[in-house]
Amino acid sequence: MLTDLFAGQQYDSTNFFLIAGPCVVESEELLMEVGDKVSTICRNLGIPYIFKASYRKANRTSASSFTGLGDETGLQLLQKTGAAFKVPVTTDIHGHDEAAVAAQFADILQIPAFLCRQTDLLIAAAETGKIVNVKKGQFVSGPSMKFAVEKIVRAGNENVILTERGNTFGYQDLVVDYRNIPWMKEHGVPVVMDCTHSLQQPNQTTGVTGGNPQLIGTIASAAIASGADGLFIETHPNPAVAKSDGANMLRLDLLEGLLQKLVKIRKAVV
Amino acid sequence: MLTDLFAGQQYDSTNFFLIAGPCVVESEELLMEVGDKVSTICRNLGIPYIFKASYRKANRTSASSFTGLGDETGLQLLQKTGAAFKVPVTTDIHGHDEAAVAAQFADILQIPAFLCRQTDLLIAAAETGKIVNVKKGQFVSGPSMKFAVEKIVRAGNENVILTERGNTFGYQDLVVDYRNIPWMKEHGVPVVMDCTHSLQQPNQTTGVTGGNPQLIGTIASAAIASGADGLFIETHPNPAVAKSDGANMLRLDLLEGLLQKLVKIRKAVV
Amino acid sequence: MLTDLFAGQQYDSTNFFLIAGPCVVESEELLMEVGDKVSTICRNLGIPYIFKASYRKANRTSASSFTGLGDETGLQLLQKTGAAFKVPVTTDIHGHDEAAVAAQFADILQIPAFLCRQTDLLIAAAETGKIVNVKKGQFVSGPSMKFAVEKIVRAGNENVILTERGNTFGYQDLVVDYRNIPWMKEHGVPVVMDCTHSLQQPNQTTGVTGGNPQLIGTIASAAIASGADGLFIETHPNPAVAKSDGANMLRLDLLEGLLQKLVKIRKAVV
Amino acid sequence: MLTDLFAGQQYDSTNFFLIAGPCVVESEELLMEVGDKVSTICRNLGIPYIFKASYRKANRTSASSFTGLGDETGLQLLQKTGAAFKVPVTTDIHGHDEAAVAAQFADILQIPAFLCRQTDLLIAAAETGKIVNVKKGQFVSGPSMKFAVEKIVRAGNENVILTERGNTFGYQDLVVDYRNIPWMKEHGVPVVMDCTHSLQQPNQTTGVTGGNPQLIGTIASAAIASGADGLFIETHPNPAVAKSDGANMLRLDLLEGLLQKLVKIRKAVV
Repeated sequence: MLTDLFAGQQYDSTNFFLIAGPCVVESEELLMEVGDKVSTICRNLGIPYIFKASYRKANRTSASSFTGLGDETGLQLLQKTGAAFKVPVTTDIHGHDEAAVAAQFADILQIPAFLCRQTDLLIAAAETGKIVNVKKGQFVSGPSMKFAVEKIVRAGNENVILTERGNTFGYQDLVVDYRNIPWMKEHGVPVVMDCTHSLQQPNQTTGVTGGNPQLIGTIASAAIASGADGLFIETHPNPAVAKSDGANMLRLDLLEGLLQKLVKIRKAVV
Repeated sequence: MLTDLFAGQQYDSTNFFLIAGPCVVESEELLMEVGDKVSTICRNLGIPYIFKASYRKANRTSASSFTGLGDETGLQLLQKTGAAFKVPVTTDIHGHDEAAVAAQFADILQIPAFLCRQTDLLIAAAETGKIVNVKKGQFVSGPSMKFAVEKIVRAGNENVILTERGNTFGYQDLVVDYRNIPWMKEHGVPVVMDCTHSLQQPNQTTGVTGGNPQLIGTIASAAIASGADGLFIETHPNPAVAKSDGANMLRLDLLEGLLQKLVKIRKAVV
Repeated sequence: MLTDLFAGQQYDSTNFFLIAGPCVVESEELLMEVGDKVSTICRNLGIPYIFKASYRKANRTSASSFTGLGDETGLQLLQKTGAAFKVPVTTDIHGHDEAAVAAQFADILQIPAFLCRQTDLLIAAAETGKIVNVKKGQFVSGPSMKFAVEKIVRAGNENVILTERGNTFGYQDLVVDYRNIPWMKEHGVPVVMDCTHSLQQPNQTTGVTGGNPQLIGTIASAAIASGADGLFIETHPNPAVAKSDGANMLRLDLLEGLLQKLVKIRKAVV
Repeated sequence: MLTDLFAGQQYDSTNFFLIAGPCVVESEELLMEVGDKVSTICRNLGIPYIFKASYRKANRTSASSFTGLGDETGLQLLQKTGAAFKVPVTTDIHGHDEAAVAAQFADILQIPAFLCRQTDLLIAAAETGKIVNVKKGQFVSGPSMKFAVEKIVRAGNENVILTERGNTFGYQDLVVDYRNIPWMKEHGVPVVMDCTHSLQQPNQTTGVTGGNPQLIGTIASAAIASGADGLFIETHPNPAVAKSDGANMLRLDLLEGLLQKLVKIRKAVV
């Protein structure tokens, strides 16, 4: 599955893969800037790369938060970015009716963590034939994610990825449980660490989720050492003005240094 | 809102209200049996009553679990039961496209806990004009549920209920936090305790959620003492053969004794 | 055990009992003021009463916090207060070497939650022959507290009380699990709810534990409804100037109203 | 501090250090066997080594568990093992009265996690002048451990180590939070990961703590990648017959392979 996905790229086959981009499709300029810089860095480091941006945000805490530029525009810009840099693209979907539409533009459909138990959504995503990347719910154990994999496989699609993104730890904190990496690898699928959303501080009184972006390196390093197959990192040239998840996105100019360090750890563990 | 809802019933206006029924629409016989017995008990105890059954189960852990008799059949049987016993009815919906359909048959639309952050779903439910009962996510704090209320109110619907149903406590347990009752009442809406799903033991290796039904009385008594406005209790004549949530449903013949005790506690706190 | 303990008091034998007083022995005046008011209120309401104050604080977060007036002075004032109002007294101990000393002055030795697994301490307390009240650790389940009971009983002392005082819920919050009340009653001992420390907000960056005293009524009401045999409530005429746990103590002038309400709930459940 | 401690050993100064040994002093033969094998492995890999065994177990869940050979015997065997292999030794203490005694035999005094808030114990340990290794309580955050460091430093001892050993995650599980490694390093002290007790499964109905020893490699790899200065690993030739913590100790013959892998990760991160 991954070999086909990365067929257009040159990379080190023992490396981890990277899913990265801005949280949400804010503008064409932003997508092109991020796509250009990240694809160049990944090419230089031999990291296979998947561009990520959400075309719509459906589960913001507060109704007044930004939710996107419009579905059609968002999806087209996503696809255009992938084509420009010859990399696959991914976005998240939130209802079964979005699956077939998004599948026309994206190579991987991502299932949000809150929705990882919604059977209709998993089956609709599976039936597109695209790769389905299910984020583990903050309330689900790694071993239980085998039931999500089974729902997709029974719908005729064996192309599944699972992603750890932190676990409910009191109301206002998440904790990453690295045991979930080997536990989910036992389901026979690639396992990704979402280094961005793992650092969320939910349920803030402002209605805007907080974060700890200075810990992205710790989260990512531990994930690679634990055997993660891929990393998910949201990045933005200026997180302070980003329209979503600014509290946790990595500043784009810090990405290269981080990836260099992670490639070294990867070489030590494979 | 509640006064209108219970206009067809005779009850003690200082009492709590009860949302009860079998987890899922298994058959017309089952609905009629439960509706008959529970409405009789409630009439005798002066408890205003709302009949509940899910017409479809969308988020079972495992894909092989029972999901319903078909949407149309399920909704019609639900409505028929309400009419037979002159009580309002409620069911849960799982996607924005279900809201308008379910609203033709149900008086209250219930939003599942996993979906309490899905803006599209909350707005679609709000726009039906029906009462919207949002279950607090296992990963959401009571104070943060104000954002769910706001999403519905901004969509033009002020008829909101919030329900506590337990909080993620490690992978295989939930804990009820009774602070959420006063915290959610501060949002200006009636607050319900879901005594059934609060006792779930999720992420079991079998893919079937476990439970502790012998503790329903403890959960319910503490809720009434804490000021809950209503209780949600799934009940079945024979939980061992129920097609969903058998591990936590109250045996129907135990309901009357429990409610008698709860009415006494209620009288002590109002 | 409790009948003997309360032999000097007149009370309603179906009532819950109350352990109450200021967190720490600050001065003789404070003890006498609190002892006088609380014993009067309890006599009027038919509540059997145990006076509580710590003679030493051994586990403050920060080393600069107040730890007591000196052991001898503290214990003597405690005993004097009990004698003045003809009520039994309790204090907590922190090391096995304190047990025999404190037992000369106190009727009940309380084991702090952090120390509930320290075998030496439990045995030393048991060997005094006094009643031993073990607070359930924030990291221990109610069912596992049977091992604490066994350690004391095997040391020849059957006079054991267990107390719920909240469970670790992320780093900065505790949640009361009311299931622990019936679970610990299965061990054959009276079960108390500590309404004060259950509301702590630990691990604050200031080194001073925070709190939510406005929720004491919720915690206490739910406890009585759940079948708790006793309540533990720290109270102070002016919590804002108290030398320990000011964040959670109940203002003394609010105690009577709360207890009146709780007595009504108790009558509804026994 | 560490340079002096390891003065008698030859090692790679960029390497992590290892605290390892059997959980408890079972016999002289066991200590000599483990000390011989582990010191040889460490010498070959350039890892500075500290021999560990408890001379007494004070906080077993159940009173019928093994607690040691006797204090004097246990401490003497510990010291003899260190002398035999020219490595420093460490043991845990449980009361302030044990500090001065244990300090005659051990180079590092370890404070158990449950006791990390006991001021008397921390001060008594500090006053011996020995290095004090405080295990972070399962209920304490990494940032809050600064108060433990302060208590020791104010008592005149700057030789402090902090150890992560997992955090309460529901009743029957612990989760390691790797954020605690950088958070505790900010307190200016070396930080250790306890790979053994982090994998405990507490509150089992049997009264014997369970475990997941197959995950030791995951826990340790992630710790080194996160910047831990040292590792704590209990090891035994035959964990199945060990008298304590058998559920989590690493089989001695697996240690060398694990350490080889960890040294490679370490080289990638320093």
